[in-house]
Amino acid sequence: MTDIKIPLRDMRFAMRELLDWDQHYASLGYDEASPDVVDAILEEGAKFCENVLAPINAVGDQQGCTWKDGEVTTPDGFKEAYQQFVEAGWPSLAHALEHGGQGLPQSLGTIMSEMVGTTNWSWGMYPGLSHGAMNTLEAHGTEEQKATFLTKLVEGTWTGTMCLTEPHCGTDLGILRTKAEPNADGSYAITGTKIFISAGEHDMAENIIHIVLARLPDAPAGTKGISLFIVPKFLPNEDGSLGERNGVVCGSLEHKMGIHGNATAVLNFDGAKGFLIGPPNKGLNCMFTFMNTARLGTALQGLAHAEAGFQKSLAYAKDRLQMRSLSGPKNPDGVADPIIVHPDVRRMLLTQKAFAEGGRMLVLLCAQQVDRTNKGSEEEQKEAEELLAFLTPIAKAFLTETGFESANLGLQCFGGHGYITEWGMEQNVRDARIATIYEGTTGIQALDLLGRKVLMSQGELLRRFTKMVHKFCQAEAEDETLAPFVAKLQELNKEWGDLTMHVGAKAMENPDEVGAASVDYLMYSGYVTLGYLWARAVKVASEKLAAGESEAEFYRAKLATARFYFDRILPRTATHAAAMKSGAQNLMELDAEYFAF
Amino acid sequence: MTDIKIPLRDMRFAMRELLDWDQHYASLGYDEASPDVVDAILEEGAKFCENVLAPINAVGDQQGCTWKDGEVTTPDGFKEAYQQFVEAGWPSLAHALEHGGQGLPQSLGTIMSEMVGTTNWSWGMYPGLSHGAMNTLEAHGTEEQKATFLTKLVEGTWTGTMCLTEPHCGTDLGILRTKAEPNADGSYAITGTKIFISAGEHDMAENIIHIVLARLPDAPAGTKGISLFIVPKFLPNEDGSLGERNGVVCGSLEHKMGIHGNATAVLNFDGAKGFLIGPPNKGLNCMFTFMNTARLGTALQGLAHAEAGFQKSLAYAKDRLQMRSLSGPKNPDGVADPIIVHPDVRRMLLTQKAFAEGGRMLVLLCAQQVDRTNKGSEEEQKEAEELLAFLTPIAKAFLTETGFESANLGLQCFGGHGYITEWGMEQNVRDARIATIYEGTTGIQALDLLGRKVLMSQGELLRRFTKMVHKFCQAEAEDETLAPFVAKLQELNKEWGDLTMHVGAKAMENPDEVGAASVDYLMYSGYVTLGYLWARAVKVASEKLAAGESEAEFYRAKLATARFYFDRILPRTATHAAAMKSGAQNLMELDAEYFAF
Repeated sequence: MTDIKIPLRDMRFAMRELLDWDQHYASLGYDEASPDVVDAILEEGAKFCENVLAPINAVGDQQGCTWKDGEVTTPDGFKEAYQQFVEAGWPSLAHALEHGGQGLPQSLGTIMSEMVGTTNWSWGMYPGLSHGAMNTLEAHGTEEQKATFLTKLVEGTWTGTMCLTEPHCGTDLGILRTKAEPNADGSYAITGTKIFISAGEHDMAENIIHIVLARLPDAPAGTKGISLFIVPKFLPNEDGSLGERNGVVCGSLEHKMGIHGNATAVLNFDGAKGFLIGPPNKGLNCMFTFMNTARLGTALQGLAHAEAGFQKSLAYAKDRLQMRSLSGPKNPDGVADPIIVHPDVRRMLLTQKAFAEGGRMLVLLCAQQVDRTNKGSEEEQKEAEELLAFLTPIAKAFLTETGFESANLGLQCFGGHGYITEWGMEQNVRDARIATIYEGTTGIQALDLLGRKVLMSQGELLRRFTKMVHKFCQAEAEDETLAPFVAKLQELNKEWGDLTMHVGAKAMENPDEVGAASVDYLMYSGYVTLGYLWARAVKVASEKLAAGESEAEFYRAKLATARFYFDRILPRTATHAAAMKSGAQNLMELDAEYFAF
Repeated sequence: MTDIKIPLRDMRFAMRELLDWDQHYASLGYDEASPDVVDAILEEGAKFCENVLAPINAVGDQQGCTWKDGEVTTPDGFKEAYQQFVEAGWPSLAHALEHGGQGLPQSLGTIMSEMVGTTNWSWGMYPGLSHGAMNTLEAHGTEEQKATFLTKLVEGTWTGTMCLTEPHCGTDLGILRTKAEPNADGSYAITGTKIFISAGEHDMAENIIHIVLARLPDAPAGTKGISLFIVPKFLPNEDGSLGERNGVVCGSLEHKMGIHGNATAVLNFDGAKGFLIGPPNKGLNCMFTFMNTARLGTALQGLAHAEAGFQKSLAYAKDRLQMRSLSGPKNPDGVADPIIVHPDVRRMLLTQKAFAEGGRMLVLLCAQQVDRTNKGSEEEQKEAEELLAFLTPIAKAFLTETGFESANLGLQCFGGHGYITEWGMEQNVRDARIATIYEGTTGIQALDLLGRKVLMSQGELLRRFTKMVHKFCQAEAEDETLAPFVAKLQELNKEWGDLTMHVGAKAMENPDEVGAASVDYLMYSGYVTLGYLWARAVKVASEKLAAGESEAEFYRAKLATARFYFDRILPRTATHAAAMKSGAQNLMELDAEYFAF
């Protein structure tokens, strides 16, 4: 089996050469994040992921987590790896100095998450979920709450969860039922059942801090009556030591398709003591503040599985001898040619490569905006927030959809062996499958993009992005290498606006037109957005080649991959455009009762 | 969990209303296959599948097969179900009277396989693999071999396998190494390792007859030196009773992504006694005779998983309450609307429906051709063989690709619950995943279609089909209901020919152009072929509606599904056309060593 290598060269390309990373940090005043520090983090992070996390990825899948009397045991090695992770200080990387963090930019946390996720997604979810809890505490917690809970989370001695879903509601949080009743001491008694709680119970840390959505007794119905509570597994004593076991118990673990190494818990809250965080009835608003970060974290998953599948299938395609090239033997001394000679195998490899490298550019572009929302000038913050609001649903849904496609192509390169567990390709597919669902399904992201972000802003958020694309195209239109890319991009960029107008106009007569167009709209947007980034990569690569820099083959590969993307992937926009234009009637005309007979 | 129901109404639509099934049997002289008999088989088959096989589908997945000292135990209930299957005479359905069969048309066997596969694909592979062995014996066995082996297989007391793949070769059988050395008694000693042998070892029948590809000592290298052997697990005595245990042992079972209920065996042949079947060194030719049938059997799998996923996700979508319709509450008294009100959920349901019902039409059209190759006039046989040669790679690859897509959409309709094992949707995805691989991957089917079938016949096989489509279009162009369908179909039918010419011309200069276009060509062909069948379904349905027949809602649903298919699925052809036209260079220009750095 191939060992996963963190693609440091490509990460540096996307960060430094494409997105001017060092300048980005410098301009925001992140002096601690000097190029040397960033390099050291990349190198050390890669080592940890390759040497500690990758070897326990298959173990996690095969053993899964085990539940006994409310206690959960994680797979062999998970706990020890977490110990090392904490000792090395990784949990605190991108958190504020005043809570024990290292004060480095959040984007560095994203980069570390990519490395972790590429080698072992299930494991990465344990520290990953903590970030949601930490961000919530950082923004909405009282000083006392921060002192009690946040410091421990930043240290990594405790982990966190986000408890939203209930058996009867996931997407539709407005109908959630978990209740919070005031105790005499100002705390609340939380009662209800939460499901699908990732990292909800485990043996990797001494305490778990659940952030729980629940309703106060007098809360209005719907989404406007939801509050947010901190519910620790163990109630901390005054001195910070662990006290009484709280009334939240893991009732069972879900048996699921993949991410077996992560415990997906059913949590029963039975009058558990909770502490209100943020204003009453504003819980969902508080949550939404961090939804973008959580969704960006999931966007990463698509990229992670695309990268992992690509690396393994590339190695296999160079190694496996099967059939001769149609254009004559390429390995005449062997019994057959390596399968990478076959055009269709290359099509599968290049698709994975284009989505992995393209996805990396998109995630990093988003991560830069997160930094700007944290530390930019007021104007920069607003601009970054709006760009992020627009790009996040695209990154989340498009990269997880193409990540799943990529994982499947990786499996397919292996033929029958891909279906066999020992090669790891089928685990990669099973693990990837959840990403288009949690943190809001592709359908939900699509409604968020088209309905909330684009149409509700009267197209303004889209226009800002298409303007950016347009400016790039205008600036580069005369460049010989870039011209063919720019021509295509310009055309799609215009069509993007036209399609939006078209759907928007129809939606005024029938709101179902939004839902009918949404997923095709999102995928269309994703292909164009990645097209824009690939065109920018072409600009960088051709400049480097013209300047006669070393690593010519690296830059030529960028050009070749961009050509592949423009020739063979970008035409998918035509299908999505046609589907959108076809309108809602072909979806709505059939009565629910006549779908089957 | 929803119980799977065999879609008898839709099967009858495709068989009788679309493909004139009763007339088809009558004209071939299948007098035994009267409408009454066919109906009885449908009803009884459906009952068996719904009541016996469906309940053990999840059991098969969860328990899998267990190996101990070379013996394999199948999941609970598998053996008993097989007993009932044999007692009811199902194995003998479509085999010749002289070998104990019921002499019914092979297409009825296909129909039964669809029903079996929809309820429990893994189980269905045990009797399914026997058919390959039976067909091989029927065509190439000596009378003695037929008397000894075929009769037992037809009875179902024994099962069969096909042993092709070896660790170093699957697609590339020319390099296989298993050897066959002559014994003094005219038999052969077979030595080698075969892998991925479905139903290769189990406890469901008293004996297993392996059909094995191996090389004679003096065999020429490559595909022209492969012979076919019968290797029984137990050597039969003169009187037909079981004799000595033969030297073929199951070394292990593969751990795989899905189809856990079926034993995928590594078989070690250690001087096992085998009997040559067919002429020496012509083994691969003998195999190819039945490749079409085997591939059609796998095409069924796509359809089966699309149907199963569709039924379950439809039931869930009507039941699950989540969010309100964008166009106003549809279930005002409930906490939310059933998710089938949401356009994007309908998109996912209709996609599954269009592929399941469309796939059924395509498989049955192929099954009719199989009957005609078996019993038609010489001219009919030739015509049917050629049509089948053309349609089989399309059906196999296109229906398994769209079947996997459908299974995933079914899972997606369930949101997070789809990822959880208990709902059965993730098993459906895992089981479906193998179908695009075995019996020749999608890539191999695509080369078969474009290279061997279309280009090697100078386009003749394609022209015959497009002529059929063209004739249909011309005949129906004036019909008001059909006109929009016909216009689109006509346009694509012409483009299909143009694209073929285009690729063919380029392939003369560079044979890699075939491989570069092949999968897009195959998918394009699949979409158009299904479009033709959906247009024919429109014709039938609109005639029935015009005639004022009952079941108007059934026929209206056909029209609505066809509109959906033409509006939202058929535009995918544009993407495939563009990819094909882009040529081989964008796949071939990048050196293998520069795919990653």
